Amino acid sequence: MIPSSLEYFFNCKSIAVVGASDKKGKIGYVVLNNIINAGFKGEIYPINLKAERIMGLKCYKKLTDVNGNIDLMVLIVPSKSIPAIMEQAGQKGIKAGVIISGGFREAGNLELEQEVLNIARKYLIRLLGPNCQGLSYTPNKLCASWPLINTEGSIGVISQSGTVAAQIGIWAQEEGLGVSSIVSLGNKADVNEIDLIDYYASDNKTELISLYIEGVRDGRKFIDTLKKCDKPVVILKPGRTKEGRKAVVTHTDSIAGFSEVFDGICKQYGFINAHNIRELYDFSKAFAYMKRPQGNKVLIITSSGGSGALATDECIEAGLCMANLSAEVKQKLKANLPSHCVINNPLDLTGDADATMYKYVIESVAKEDIDIIYVIFGDPLPEVAEIIIDLKGKIRQELAICYLGGGDVQRRETFKMHKMGIPVFPTPERTAAVLKKLLNYKKGDIHG
Amino acid sequence: MIPSSLEYFFNCKSIAVVGASDKKGKIGYVVLNNIINAGFKGEIYPINLKAERIMGLKCYKKLTDVNGNIDLMVLIVPSKSIPAIMEQAGQKGIKAGVIISGGFREAGNLELEQEVLNIARKYLIRLLGPNCQGLSYTPNKLCASWPLINTEGSIGVISQSGTVAAQIGIWAQEEGLGVSSIVSLGNKADVNEIDLIDYYASDNKTELISLYIEGVRDGRKFIDTLKKCDKPVVILKPGRTKEGRKAVVTHTDSIAGFSEVFDGICKQYGFINAHNIRELYDFSKAFAYMKRPQGNKVLIITSSGGSGALATDECIEAGLCMANLSAEVKQKLKANLPSHCVINNPLDLTGDADATMYKYVIESVAKEDIDIIYVIFGDPLPEVAEIIIDLKGKIRQELAICYLGGGDVQRRETFKMHKMGIPVFPTPERTAAVLKKLLNYKKGDIHG
Repeated sequence: MIPSSLEYFFNCKSIAVVGASDKKGKIGYVVLNNIINAGFKGEIYPINLKAERIMGLKCYKKLTDVNGNIDLMVLIVPSKSIPAIMEQAGQKGIKAGVIISGGFREAGNLELEQEVLNIARKYLIRLLGPNCQGLSYTPNKLCASWPLINTEGSIGVISQSGTVAAQIGIWAQEEGLGVSSIVSLGNKADVNEIDLIDYYASDNKTELISLYIEGVRDGRKFIDTLKKCDKPVVILKPGRTKEGRKAVVTHTDSIAGFSEVFDGICKQYGFINAHNIRELYDFSKAFAYMKRPQGNKVLIITSSGGSGALATDECIEAGLCMANLSAEVKQKLKANLPSHCVINNPLDLTGDADATMYKYVIESVAKEDIDIIYVIFGDPLPEVAEIIIDLKGKIRQELAICYLGGGDVQRRETFKMHKMGIPVFPTPERTAAVLKKLLNYKKGDIHG
Repeated sequence: MIPSSLEYFFNCKSIAVVGASDKKGKIGYVVLNNIINAGFKGEIYPINLKAERIMGLKCYKKLTDVNGNIDLMVLIVPSKSIPAIMEQAGQKGIKAGVIISGGFREAGNLELEQEVLNIARKYLIRLLGPNCQGLSYTPNKLCASWPLINTEGSIGVISQSGTVAAQIGIWAQEEGLGVSSIVSLGNKADVNEIDLIDYYASDNKTELISLYIEGVRDGRKFIDTLKKCDKPVVILKPGRTKEGRKAVVTHTDSIAGFSEVFDGICKQYGFINAHNIRELYDFSKAFAYMKRPQGNKVLIITSSGGSGALATDECIEAGLCMANLSAEVKQKLKANLPSHCVINNPLDLTGDADATMYKYVIESVAKEDIDIIYVIFGDPLPEVAEIIIDLKGKIRQELAICYLGGGDVQRRETFKMHKMGIPVFPTPERTAAVLKKLLNYKKGDIHG
């Protein structure tokens, strides 16, 4: 019997790092360092045969030397030493383990992987990996991985590539948006994408699942699990070309057949199909934090005429349609805005725009026949975040925010909006792409 | 007669800032501050009616109060005061002026713009703007614009949108790539894109022209100028849709007809057509610093299997073809690389890869039937820049570099490569997109 809960991974109160190291650059150093620096509140036990203390923490020679409870162990040691460590873990009563070490199935050592799995089953230990990049869960200030990710957000990442997972985490962290969790699957000896989708589906810190997957062992069960999950799921899957499928088979020994039917499955069941890493991130941002607009009529409000023109092309090509302002509202805006403003769609406030002008315009058009208010900040405009945060939820329309050309001011304002759960996109084309995807989403309303 | 040279803009030895301000946030503050902080070596004269000193510099009440020569003046004052200032400039013998102020043609004041232009013609003053975001020229440490751009590179930007220009500059600066110059055109009362393309064509600091253009007044002359220019020109032009064309007409009063035939013109004459801001930047990077590959056979070398699989799909979709390694080289690599490495295409060095392994592999395949070596660094891999810098030029193949998932290490290594003129792209899809564009380039060999 396998215990079904993954609680010990995400909500562990104590962690042992087997193979913790004080040598900068070693993975055993990086992971212990990140666990400490992410602000983990529970006990941390470095396990190292030689050191007395690492990073100020007392070291232990083996897991069974630790007096207190260990909820989660992270293994960063040569693969052949892992069966013996698993036995100690079983005796210690540990219930969850992350094996970062490689040297198993992916290196042709299927037997060693099976041996480790058998010990895990014997002691009811759940295993993540082997050959993975660990996991992060920001609500528990847990980062048993790299790079250091500790900004709390709503996106839950599951990835069969450590690099893709890391990149999504880095972008989310750099923009102040954050993630709820990141799990790198590795060889999936035990815990796989199905377990994790199930877990995220009922995790109230996760609003959306962001999935990089190369293949699944049980396609039927995978689809059924996704169908049951009432949170949006964005999926990036390589293998669109024959050559790509060959690369996938080599990388993770995934079943090639699934690739050919994957696009159809996404369309049929309403999973959100991303074409590349950037789309995986952008669509995750959009579906985690935005609602599906009620229709496709868009009003563009901008301080940059050029960005407005580019956004217009991109909106039209994305299937949106330019909303018309009523004569009444046009007249009101003309009377109250500086005469050089262009009262049209795009509505161009020009380079003299400030936060107050944006607020005035958005409030003035809130009762118009518009589904999406697409706001472009095209200059270093300060204090616009407060305006948007204040308006969000007060107006019927969906707000789509694009900020570019603003350097440091842009970074600061974007951070503020992200902290309040309002996604900001850095170019007009990326904003239009998420609007298209939101409008075409079929599974039902996002966020109930 | 109009003097044809734009020398006084780019290689000025002295600048007057009319409307310089000591109030933070004002454009007159930002521009003076950026001129000083970019490291301009010549004389700087703030002109301000009230202040004695601004930012430590002596102020003058008017241009004619300055004793020394003034090569370039930057005007940031209300539009109606500009004719009088132009007269003083003429008396002072100033030969170049940037009018940042708005309130001219774009605000319906065509007559005022004509009046200013007439004074300029009378005194042989060349004018940039009005209603523009100024210019930067890094070889002269000149930044009479915002944001502060002072990293020297090879890309020359000409833009009819201040925001698009600023964003390209910001990206180039953030990545340590830099630009040679950025010019914001504004209303183009005098200096226009044709003058600037001509200037950049013979400027030995500029390798490539990056152009955002909404419309041209003389389409025939524009095309002839581009055809004569033997540097690659990347062009982003909005107006692909009817609605976009409408927005363009409103923004810069551009001739709509040109939009419809623009794609055809690019194809016919070999101008590089960018679809959005990101492409404008990426294609500019690629064509400024890379050569056109001799063919489409690519070898992908990666530390991330997932990124390798994604890159494979994207390369195939971009029209590339996966190169085959000879049996001999395969055998050699198998004998000398760790056993878990996948000797295939993608060639996966796995997460244990280091700089030395990349160097060994690239050197080993240099005589193979391969046109492009597409290197993916998919982890925080230190010291890889040195390897690439060392190999560049020593091998026949074109190197395409993608770095992702590496956080701070990635930033540092990317900077080092950019400093040496080797462009690095942050995702597999962006790398594939530039390879496609390079391969399809028809105008002739880039860089002679």
